Amino acid sequence: MAKVAVLGYGTVGSGVVEVLDTNAAEVEKSAGEKIELKYILDLRDFPGDKHESQVVHDINVILDDPEVDVICETMGGIEPAFTFEKQALSKGKSVCTSNKELVAAHGPELVELAKANGVSYLFEASVGGGIPVLRSLNDSLKHEKIDSITGILNGTTNYILTKMDKEGIGFETVLKQAQEKGYAERNPEADVEGYDACRKIAILSSLMSGKHVDYEDIYTEGISKINIQDFEYARSLNMAIKLLAMCKRNENGFFTIVAPFLIPYENPLANVNGVFNAINVHGNMLGDVMFYGKGAGKNATASAVVADVIDMVKHKGKHIEVNMKAEKATLSPKDNAVRHFFVRVSAELEDQAREIFGSNLDVVKRNSIPNEFAFITDSISEKDFEEKLWKMDSVKGYIRLY
Amino acid sequence: MAKVAVLGYGTVGSGVVEVLDTNAAEVEKSAGEKIELKYILDLRDFPGDKHESQVVHDINVILDDPEVDVICETMGGIEPAFTFEKQALSKGKSVCTSNKELVAAHGPELVELAKANGVSYLFEASVGGGIPVLRSLNDSLKHEKIDSITGILNGTTNYILTKMDKEGIGFETVLKQAQEKGYAERNPEADVEGYDACRKIAILSSLMSGKHVDYEDIYTEGISKINIQDFEYARSLNMAIKLLAMCKRNENGFFTIVAPFLIPYENPLANVNGVFNAINVHGNMLGDVMFYGKGAGKNATASAVVADVIDMVKHKGKHIEVNMKAEKATLSPKDNAVRHFFVRVSAELEDQAREIFGSNLDVVKRNSIPNEFAFITDSISEKDFEEKLWKMDSVKGYIRLY
Repeated sequence: MAKVAVLGYGTVGSGVVEVLDTNAAEVEKSAGEKIELKYILDLRDFPGDKHESQVVHDINVILDDPEVDVICETMGGIEPAFTFEKQALSKGKSVCTSNKELVAAHGPELVELAKANGVSYLFEASVGGGIPVLRSLNDSLKHEKIDSITGILNGTTNYILTKMDKEGIGFETVLKQAQEKGYAERNPEADVEGYDACRKIAILSSLMSGKHVDYEDIYTEGISKINIQDFEYARSLNMAIKLLAMCKRNENGFFTIVAPFLIPYENPLANVNGVFNAINVHGNMLGDVMFYGKGAGKNATASAVVADVIDMVKHKGKHIEVNMKAEKATLSPKDNAVRHFFVRVSAELEDQAREIFGSNLDVVKRNSIPNEFAFITDSISEKDFEEKLWKMDSVKGYIRLY
Repeated sequence: MAKVAVLGYGTVGSGVVEVLDTNAAEVEKSAGEKIELKYILDLRDFPGDKHESQVVHDINVILDDPEVDVICETMGGIEPAFTFEKQALSKGKSVCTSNKELVAAHGPELVELAKANGVSYLFEASVGGGIPVLRSLNDSLKHEKIDSITGILNGTTNYILTKMDKEGIGFETVLKQAQEKGYAERNPEADVEGYDACRKIAILSSLMSGKHVDYEDIYTEGISKINIQDFEYARSLNMAIKLLAMCKRNENGFFTIVAPFLIPYENPLANVNGVFNAINVHGNMLGDVMFYGKGAGKNATASAVVADVIDMVKHKGKHIEVNMKAEKATLSPKDNAVRHFFVRVSAELEDQAREIFGSNLDVVKRNSIPNEFAFITDSISEKDFEEKLWKMDSVKGYIRLY
């Protein structure tokens, strides 16, 4: 019998409790022993709740109980979660979490602390909700040289972009609808500016590099500048527009970026719609494998937390290796990344565009979008592109091509 | 240091050797110790091959060598693979394989034999090439009640169907092209009649039910009756046609089927094109998760075999639980499965169709397909449908709806 404490009885925490209750038999079969919920830490009381009697308000009750083997931190945010996790690991308790902010900021040092204490630190639910991508990277695919990871990691922005594309509604209107439906937060910045996707790709990049990729080092662009005319051009090019988060291995190390990209329809990432997430992993032997599912949602996320609990119970007294060290990874500068760019320019600047970007530009014009045209550049570096862009009198917008 | 033997130096077997060579450092890191190839069993010699000196012709050399911990059976076919695997397991060697025929026919008894001998029997590569779906089912998702598994499990038929849809070319012509490109066998029956997909869903269904689902009990229809007019109707309905293999849990147990299905474009399975495979797993807490990748190919399949080798080396001296028993599973009869059907009928039979299938039929007509019409039935059981179909003077074809 293994005993578990859940920190934070909010959406994910109550989901974890629900999975442990509903699937108790399957959980036991999977773990090889019964798993019992001993404590729930929360500031609130939950009178009438089935687990009312397990609620405690003092973390020390949990930390000081030698019966507790595993702690699920589902509070979110940096503090006090960070302190609680450090204390738990130092006391020889394994910790798992859905807290992407904390994992992105301090995951590698928490892995090291777990290792030093002979316990484990896992965080499957911090990326892609219930999609078992971290465990696959850490397990089935660990013998691969991973060349790249490319993901649609934020369901809110993908929902917004899909709506804009399929229904021709502008960003602000769709965002408002998403907020009304509860798909977007009242303060949507973390999603629409790409910060959430940035944290998730930081976690994936850390696993890929074996070091700590700091999310603050990742170039991040959101979707708020994308408009319905961009989609009209995209459709005429047989492409979708998606907020991609990617990490690529190159000769100098790793390059990571979060930005909207044009993706040809034949790429499966182009067909990931609505609130779904997808993560494509490319291994040197394996080629491409893609994982797809709902990237959020109470029960899916909770199921991933429980998968970590089971893994830690199965490995009680052992440290489960996670390919991350606290040493900071050096990322290749964005400047050197080479790709095509889609650029929109006023009609009168066509000569200037040809002068700067090349005389045989690949030009796209739409009758329904008068007084302007778009073109796709040759394959050039981000730095070159930026320099050329500065030479233009003005541009109406640009999007990278995947 | 763990020592491995590969049985069969064909496509997959040589791929396994290549993965062990190319990714030796990653393999060692993942397994926690060095993995050395000690023997290759093959009838042929391979003069000049890097591993020439490791080739042996007598299985007993391998079976009698106590240093060999793990055997990769990549010969294919039932015999002598079955005998070799049984001998190896009985001698306390773990076995992994890419051999779907053998796993579908005898997998569960081989799992039991492995368990009885305290070793492991794994077969990740037998379904979906390099896609880590079996390990996920057996590991990350084991605490879920899996309600259904639906897959596009055969790359050849998916290539053919995709070509027919996108290029409007008939089945026979596309098949011939696929054979010329090496995507289809000279004798394409196993692929186009659904037998290959049937074996793979038998393996997945066995894992889902915990028993042995006999592939001979699975109702299987191939794609040879699908024609380009079916695709024309399908496109007008915003649907794709895919060969699906599925296993669903119902109140009486499990129902499994392999057949072409019409799938709405908004379902991600509809967008799995070309030689790609995809497997959608639905768990009671998790909801849908889809795994996507190339379902075949030397290195991808070999990478999955090596993942099994690593897992077995990590669990040396232990049996890795696999949710399968030799006891035969009882499948629900096909008759009770309820769904919509798409039916094509001669124009003059419209009155008869309305009489038999209901007066307010959902009729589809295409100007380009004269003298006939199609309709979609209400949701009815397979048995009802069959009985109604018998009452019609004739039908031009029918396809199930997903």
